[in-house]
Amino acid sequence: MSGLDWIAADWGTSHLRVWGLRGDTVLHQTASDQGMGQLSRDGFEPALLALVADWLPEGQVTPVIICGMAGSRQGWAEAPYRAVPCTPLDGPLVQAPCRDLRLSVHIVPGLQQAKPADVIRGEETQVAGFLAQHPGWDGVICLPGTHSKWVRVSAGEVVSFQTFLTGEMFGLLSEQSVLRHSVAGWADAGFAEGVAQGMERPERLMARLFGLRAEALLNGLAADIARARLSGLLIGAELAAAKPYWLGQRVAVIGAAPLAQHYAQALGTLSVPVTTHESPAMTLAGLAAARTLLPPEAPSCVN
Amino acid sequence: MSGLDWIAADWGTSHLRVWGLRGDTVLHQTASDQGMGQLSRDGFEPALLALVADWLPEGQVTPVIICGMAGSRQGWAEAPYRAVPCTPLDGPLVQAPCRDLRLSVHIVPGLQQAKPADVIRGEETQVAGFLAQHPGWDGVICLPGTHSKWVRVSAGEVVSFQTFLTGEMFGLLSEQSVLRHSVAGWADAGFAEGVAQGMERPERLMARLFGLRAEALLNGLAADIARARLSGLLIGAELAAAKPYWLGQRVAVIGAAPLAQHYAQALGTLSVPVTTHESPAMTLAGLAAARTLLPPEAPSCVN
Repeated sequence: MSGLDWIAADWGTSHLRVWGLRGDTVLHQTASDQGMGQLSRDGFEPALLALVADWLPEGQVTPVIICGMAGSRQGWAEAPYRAVPCTPLDGPLVQAPCRDLRLSVHIVPGLQQAKPADVIRGEETQVAGFLAQHPGWDGVICLPGTHSKWVRVSAGEVVSFQTFLTGEMFGLLSEQSVLRHSVAGWADAGFAEGVAQGMERPERLMARLFGLRAEALLNGLAADIARARLSGLLIGAELAAAKPYWLGQRVAVIGAAPLAQHYAQALGTLSVPVTTHESPAMTLAGLAAARTLLPPEAPSCVN
Repeated sequence: MSGLDWIAADWGTSHLRVWGLRGDTVLHQTASDQGMGQLSRDGFEPALLALVADWLPEGQVTPVIICGMAGSRQGWAEAPYRAVPCTPLDGPLVQAPCRDLRLSVHIVPGLQQAKPADVIRGEETQVAGFLAQHPGWDGVICLPGTHSKWVRVSAGEVVSFQTFLTGEMFGLLSEQSVLRHSVAGWADAGFAEGVAQGMERPERLMARLFGLRAEALLNGLAADIARARLSGLLIGAELAAAKPYWLGQRVAVIGAAPLAQHYAQALGTLSVPVTTHESPAMTLAGLAAARTLLPPEAPSCVN
């Protein structure tokens, strides 16, 4: 009776993370780079089985709960967006077709907002996990990453949200632009400077970026200062644009270290009350909450 | 006596353009993709000869005047920056080592600004060419491109300048970010919208970018509108940051079509008096002005 009774999966564009659980206890966890971005529709089941086949008890159907891009139109099965304002999580989950009779696969829907147009896939599950652990919490949740999300939560519902391209922009600029010659490593002082500059005059972002290159050429600006300042400039500009979200609110930052700490530090300089939370734990808590939405008898595999 | 008497070259990071001239008359022109970015120091002379060897009169030394990244530290020979305020062009040019006795190669120095730190290599020659054709002109010169430059000119001198990463950012976002799925083609209406949004609330740039993706997913935003709006958002944000440059000034835009027209159109909506000028013509006029700085007897090749 110590066997696994469900599988949780966080399936993004560039990654797949899975956990094998019995109730709330994690028995196994692993990951691969088989993100949605490199899979065709019939590639999802094999990619999942490659990680979990050895965990599966024979002679029974194991439910798999998935959040993230696996539910997009190019994913395993499209899980249509739910429109805000709404709870971050609600049934029915969308069942994905599979051939292996040991699996019953269910995907959590993302959220959409009409104006300004915006979408979320995956972070809604982290929000649900956070709220499951903090019942009755009202405030703003910030989820930094490739596409960082700011989510306003009130009375258990997502009221509105806003996506920023900050992380992707940092990757492109630091690895592929002319700035790549001038940035490497990390120095906290550069980050603080960048946040202050980015917040104070966000409209000058486009001008300040090339300044990093010019300062390296003319003044020998250190590469670790330059890289941290680049991150600070972008995050500072994001914070300036997200001011309607954090102003006068408490903020929970859900993310991976050190990025979540960087956001918390930047918010701290604005006197915003802030807590930080590890994203895998919130994802797992959210997927556990999603599992309670399954019908008591999980239907068997769709063939 | 109808033979070529000098060669002009615009040698950037990713391109090499050369002209064979007699006085102001272009006898030959050609180009290659042998930019500085892919050449080691001893690769410059062969790359140049590959284009011009057939043009060279035997038994005499032909001067070659080069502007651009060939004068950078990683270039053919470093031509140290001159500090603004100063004329866009002044001697001595920097002589580059070469083995072919038919060539005498001279590189135009770039410009540097201490605060805010900034550098120019190549555009100073276009500015010089423009001023050679418009003596006594005062105002602001805008040179859009991978790295767009705004240059304040007064009494024949470059007073100050500012570089924006706009073009490079557009390339990265439209070709390599998540937005690449949603942008293709061009629709003028999208550009005008983007400029207006980018100018009005430049601090929201980072938020509006993902909106293009979300609008494509939710509202079927057309890819040609989206791509033009992306360009407009970035150029609008640049114009907002460059306001101290263009406000109350006349602006000469030097660039290639259609980008120069897009900038002129955007500046026109701000009631800025604007003219546009083709960049190759300005480069050539600037290199011709640089040629007059050579000593009467061009020294022979440095071996």
